[in-house]
Amino acid sequence: MRENNVRNIWKAGGAVVNGWLAIPSSISAEAMAHAGWDSLTIDIQHGLVDYSGAVPMFQAISSTGVTPMVRVPWNEPGIIMKCLDSGSAGIICPMISSREEAAALVGACKYPPIGTRSYAGARNFIYHGPGYSVQGANDTVLAIAMIETEGALANLDEIMTTPGLDGIYVGPADLALALGRPVSGSPTDEVVLKEISRILETARRHNMPAGIHTGGPEFAVKMIKLGYQLVSITSDVALLTLASQQAIAAVREGSGTTAPASGGAKASY
Amino acid sequence: MRENNVRNIWKAGGAVVNGWLAIPSSISAEAMAHAGWDSLTIDIQHGLVDYSGAVPMFQAISSTGVTPMVRVPWNEPGIIMKCLDSGSAGIICPMISSREEAAALVGACKYPPIGTRSYAGARNFIYHGPGYSVQGANDTVLAIAMIETEGALANLDEIMTTPGLDGIYVGPADLALALGRPVSGSPTDEVVLKEISRILETARRHNMPAGIHTGGPEFAVKMIKLGYQLVSITSDVALLTLASQQAIAAVREGSGTTAPASGGAKASY
Amino acid sequence: MRENNVRNIWKAGGAVVNGWLAIPSSISAEAMAHAGWDSLTIDIQHGLVDYSGAVPMFQAISSTGVTPMVRVPWNEPGIIMKCLDSGSAGIICPMISSREEAAALVGACKYPPIGTRSYAGARNFIYHGPGYSVQGANDTVLAIAMIETEGALANLDEIMTTPGLDGIYVGPADLALALGRPVSGSPTDEVVLKEISRILETARRHNMPAGIHTGGPEFAVKMIKLGYQLVSITSDVALLTLASQQAIAAVREGSGTTAPASGGAKASY
Amino acid sequence: MRENNVRNIWKAGGAVVNGWLAIPSSISAEAMAHAGWDSLTIDIQHGLVDYSGAVPMFQAISSTGVTPMVRVPWNEPGIIMKCLDSGSAGIICPMISSREEAAALVGACKYPPIGTRSYAGARNFIYHGPGYSVQGANDTVLAIAMIETEGALANLDEIMTTPGLDGIYVGPADLALALGRPVSGSPTDEVVLKEISRILETARRHNMPAGIHTGGPEFAVKMIKLGYQLVSITSDVALLTLASQQAIAAVREGSGTTAPASGGAKASY
Amino acid sequence: MRENNVRNIWKAGGAVVNGWLAIPSSISAEAMAHAGWDSLTIDIQHGLVDYSGAVPMFQAISSTGVTPMVRVPWNEPGIIMKCLDSGSAGIICPMISSREEAAALVGACKYPPIGTRSYAGARNFIYHGPGYSVQGANDTVLAIAMIETEGALANLDEIMTTPGLDGIYVGPADLALALGRPVSGSPTDEVVLKEISRILETARRHNMPAGIHTGGPEFAVKMIKLGYQLVSITSDVALLTLASQQAIAAVREGSGTTAPASGGAKASY
Amino acid sequence: MRENNVRNIWKAGGAVVNGWLAIPSSISAEAMAHAGWDSLTIDIQHGLVDYSGAVPMFQAISSTGVTPMVRVPWNEPGIIMKCLDSGSAGIICPMISSREEAAALVGACKYPPIGTRSYAGARNFIYHGPGYSVQGANDTVLAIAMIETEGALANLDEIMTTPGLDGIYVGPADLALALGRPVSGSPTDEVVLKEISRILETARRHNMPAGIHTGGPEFAVKMIKLGYQLVSITSDVALLTLASQQAIAAVREGSGTTAPASGGAKASY
Repeated sequence: MRENNVRNIWKAGGAVVNGWLAIPSSISAEAMAHAGWDSLTIDIQHGLVDYSGAVPMFQAISSTGVTPMVRVPWNEPGIIMKCLDSGSAGIICPMISSREEAAALVGACKYPPIGTRSYAGARNFIYHGPGYSVQGANDTVLAIAMIETEGALANLDEIMTTPGLDGIYVGPADLALALGRPVSGSPTDEVVLKEISRILETARRHNMPAGIHTGGPEFAVKMIKLGYQLVSITSDVALLTLASQQAIAAVREGSGTTAPASGGAKASY
Repeated sequence: MRENNVRNIWKAGGAVVNGWLAIPSSISAEAMAHAGWDSLTIDIQHGLVDYSGAVPMFQAISSTGVTPMVRVPWNEPGIIMKCLDSGSAGIICPMISSREEAAALVGACKYPPIGTRSYAGARNFIYHGPGYSVQGANDTVLAIAMIETEGALANLDEIMTTPGLDGIYVGPADLALALGRPVSGSPTDEVVLKEISRILETARRHNMPAGIHTGGPEFAVKMIKLGYQLVSITSDVALLTLASQQAIAAVREGSGTTAPASGGAKASY
Repeated sequence: MRENNVRNIWKAGGAVVNGWLAIPSSISAEAMAHAGWDSLTIDIQHGLVDYSGAVPMFQAISSTGVTPMVRVPWNEPGIIMKCLDSGSAGIICPMISSREEAAALVGACKYPPIGTRSYAGARNFIYHGPGYSVQGANDTVLAIAMIETEGALANLDEIMTTPGLDGIYVGPADLALALGRPVSGSPTDEVVLKEISRILETARRHNMPAGIHTGGPEFAVKMIKLGYQLVSITSDVALLTLASQQAIAAVREGSGTTAPASGGAKASY
Repeated sequence: MRENNVRNIWKAGGAVVNGWLAIPSSISAEAMAHAGWDSLTIDIQHGLVDYSGAVPMFQAISSTGVTPMVRVPWNEPGIIMKCLDSGSAGIICPMISSREEAAALVGACKYPPIGTRSYAGARNFIYHGPGYSVQGANDTVLAIAMIETEGALANLDEIMTTPGLDGIYVGPADLALALGRPVSGSPTDEVVLKEISRILETARRHNMPAGIHTGGPEFAVKMIKLGYQLVSITSDVALLTLASQQAIAAVREGSGTTAPASGGAKASY
Repeated sequence: MRENNVRNIWKAGGAVVNGWLAIPSSISAEAMAHAGWDSLTIDIQHGLVDYSGAVPMFQAISSTGVTPMVRVPWNEPGIIMKCLDSGSAGIICPMISSREEAAALVGACKYPPIGTRSYAGARNFIYHGPGYSVQGANDTVLAIAMIETEGALANLDEIMTTPGLDGIYVGPADLALALGRPVSGSPTDEVVLKEISRILETARRHNMPAGIHTGGPEFAVKMIKLGYQLVSITSDVALLTLASQQAIAAVREGSGTTAPASGGAKASY
Repeated sequence: MRENNVRNIWKAGGAVVNGWLAIPSSISAEAMAHAGWDSLTIDIQHGLVDYSGAVPMFQAISSTGVTPMVRVPWNEPGIIMKCLDSGSAGIICPMISSREEAAALVGACKYPPIGTRSYAGARNFIYHGPGYSVQGANDTVLAIAMIETEGALANLDEIMTTPGLDGIYVGPADLALALGRPVSGSPTDEVVLKEISRILETARRHNMPAGIHTGGPEFAVKMIKLGYQLVSITSDVALLTLASQQAIAAVREGSGTTAPASGGAKASY
């Protein structure tokens, strides 16, 4: 059976460096899979991707040892099971606010007797390879609940002790909104940071690995040092935009070239 | 009629900062169109894109003032005309080696009496807007010949004086191969650099704007200072890969995290 | 921030002329966006479109000032949020039958503190442009509930006073079915018409703009005169079919040509 | 073997009413296939369609008795044979200017001994059904040369007597350009109309069925009365645009509604 | 109105031989539609297909008399109604565990007064043809509940007497998991087989046609002989894999050829 | 650098068992890649695939050790180079009839100084991995000419001694047509078989590996025994159809079930 980098790194006490895929393309996904990430998460929630776009991305990632995961758009069993059948090694589910919702997530991710996932031989068998089975699937697939709502903040212990839940993942932007604070991908707001710490402490108390989304390497390093064991670095589309802006600036500054009055990104008619 | 940034900048004696699209996605294309490039070239030759992939990319770029161009896979009238009908404002054609080939390129890009482009009201009318017509199309659409083969090096004057040709574009990698020198996106080989200078000088003698592909901002700045008036900065997929590698390195170095033994980006070969 | 034509026209007391997109193509969507509609609604419920088909349609519409909206297949937060993240300026939700369902719709469409929409920088920021933010999004995005079920007819006041709801939209066909009357896109049945009037009166009492689907311009004019402030004119596929039938009839009648015995449009059933 | 409406109507001395598909969608293609056309031509030259888009359109048309044809982008054997293998019952090839080019078109369309089409059991066998074979294919598939260039006007007899050529098709816009006259889909220019008559007369002398593209029913009727035996009525995208404009105008005029200052088709930021 | 083979065969007391589509391609779907199946079910649950992939598959099947059905990913009204609007003649819904869930399935499949399906003229009218209407749709469309969970085994009578339910369908793999027995596509486990018999007996008592998924012809024949009236034979992807393995083995054995040490089908894991 | 199974097997004097992909799907391609073939050829000539469909198929195959090749639609440098850039390890080119055409094929497949392939870092570097370069590419990529025309039969020696050509491949159907004999995938015609032998003998004299297309394992075994070193076994779509027909027959015969009068696979023609 395929190694699950996220499980392996977590077992070893390390931190996963996770890439984030919002571009619905198997070409950008394959490039990302060769860039050095430990795992890649296809974002079917806020990314411009849905199931049909994700499938060739799973295939492209599969030619490498990078572990593919999905953030689903909602805690809905249909899409969760479809992603697992297509070869996702883990599900990150947004906006889990209660023990009941966490249990539903686990239910969709695990075969009986742990959950109620429906069984069939689909691409999951091709991806995971020999050894994948009812038990093997339950051992390798990750069910990860996002902590980012008022409800979740009120129910941290109940959520984190849900049987079968494998990890939690913090969404700093929604967390800030839930706290009535300004939104940021790499928050500096004290109220938000305090909650980020409290979530981590609760997770550690329950031996629950915790991950977090970040706006860039600096905040990611800070979070790993705090104890978070999975950091996502913004997204492919943000990395591409930033890299382009830096390259353009370097050329314009180095050569004294300026953008035309007619345009750049401004529509012209 | 839409402004053509490339024509405008060339008229003003400036240099175009051109982005390069190899990912067949309207999402990455749209992100690139908002990043600050003067123009964007969809690479249907070496990019992972063909006509069907390019059309939604043209549409995504059209919501901005960035000028869309195409590098076609070959000097074949069918694909050249299809790209122009879909709203490309220019054609970069690889491996032009003779006056006859340059004339065929111009023929496919321009309506009579200049060329033999076939006429129809397709997406070109939507993109270019009021004022686009037989004459307007011939005035705005760019026919650009790549100079990168032994034949081209032997026929510089004949090619650059082809009636209706609007510019030339150097491909340093194929140029190096044609010269029997090591391949590089940002060449340092003296033989290659000497030819890059000679091509530019010839182009200037014929008042023919010259562009060049580059492996990054540093070489691009050097080329603009030399007199090249259009520089392409590697490609979207290369920028994404590089940005990812830098972000991963920053996180791993900052946090002391290492990649898992089980894999990361290691493929099976 | 982009102007929202629907909000602007409603504020000015006017009526929106809305096009309806059932063909999953960015080419037909772009043609529709240049035809003169005030807004265009991608029909992910009864249209042959789903999310993956809608994204390039959003992009095609974005090169114009036409306001894009979506009719979602169901009151499910995953698809509603995905459409808003992709640049939809409004959501029309079918079969809202109660205050609770209307509140769920608003919840998915608006960020806290009004709703519980999940926050991320996706294509919405590219589409709406500078000024779009938590507050800006809540100010521009429209949450519109369809009134077409028995439940809705029983709960008009409760639905129309739901905080954060921006408009209602009548589906005459389902309304007729709910009333046990014959289905029609441009109803003439007195029972149906009476309810269409009652819905409008209730909406006016609550200062709630009301829209309605129609089978063609004639009924649309009648509805605007009645006081409806948004009319959709059948669909792209219906307009294309009708225009074809009229053109074919004109040719056959003008020239005395008849369809071949071997078939024409006759299918095998 | 499937009936070929075009062949049947031509044999009976009638005129084919041909629809024109420029939208790359199997949904619009299916709607067109049920609208009453005798045949439908997928325009891979000026339409926004390429091979990958055409295949599901062929499939959609196949559930009806409407005869599918293709206009290829160029006289290139690869794309001609691919379209025939996918179930096209005819090829319209643009810009045929000589006997040699016409013979190359026939060569790609017909199996030996008439031509050199490559043989394989692909979708053509599914579409054409029992009886399709080397001989059956040669009997049913149509090779049609467009007459629209200076060269064609000079070589009418040579082209029209090419063995294996089944028909010719006039492109009025390119014809006008070739004659140095103003472009029009439904020409009124006397020089253009005279050539349209001369082409038809030459075709009749060689018992060669002649078709023509038109800008609408009125000109189509005129051409049928002149003796043309196949008329194409503009395109799906033009019909859709026109039908939308008429519907919008009817609503605005009937209700006194005007378009918002903020937009319609004008970009707004 | 189109004939519904499943209804017809059930009325005549026969057994339906149903093909299963997991490959998201209109080409494989069309090949399957010409292979001799009575009906074809597109598996949107465990297949690699979603709605956008299913639509051209529906179109491809429509050129034959084979009846198209869908297995939806979950009992969610949005996807059920979208599939019916696109021309599915039946819905197989997984994991129905109670009368309430069965009633929700029927509700989504049938128009009022039987259910609450939303009405619109979409591709369903093109597929079903003249006679399709509110009543016609309710008469032809099949609502089929899968029996495969603990809940279902406890509520067989309640489920099978749900008004408007047209059939039930057994999933042997999930059934085995629900019973705590080893999973098999063609089960030999006595506990599983006993339940398969009990389900059939219950169905017969309620005059409810029963179908079952099978791992191959042998078990399918056994089930038909037992009284099941619809058997699905594994899936397209499984048939393709098996046929390839048999052909390869025949070649290798016949010719003494062995696979290369360097790899063949060995993946990297 | 990736192992090239075809080169390795040929070096070892063995015979390649090659699968053939005509379905444009990465899902069927991945299933085929796990079925045991030594190599897989994507058929862009007669298959229902073009470049945009082939790219995700290349990616799916890349997760295994199976060697991917392409049959291009025509001897056109644009498509040949695009396929090689996308990760094809070999090109099979149809209808090579002369030394000049064979040299053009080699030219498009090999970098200078052997050929004139254009150089860029695209997916080829990801697929082939470390060691791939100008020299490495020329060492691993295969240029294979099809022998199937009158011209080829007249020019066997000239074609097979073309510098840089790596193999030849016989197309029995076109070969039969060229000889004026009945077409068959597994020919029994003596004239055809004699030419198949003569081609092989000529190839052996020039140490040129020879492959052949076959209609099934039996003829493939015969050809391997004759000395052919690569056999393709019909196609994925033919294997799927045959496997379905056999399964259906087994069920119908075993259970006494017959197809419905209303249709089954009967199309409308």
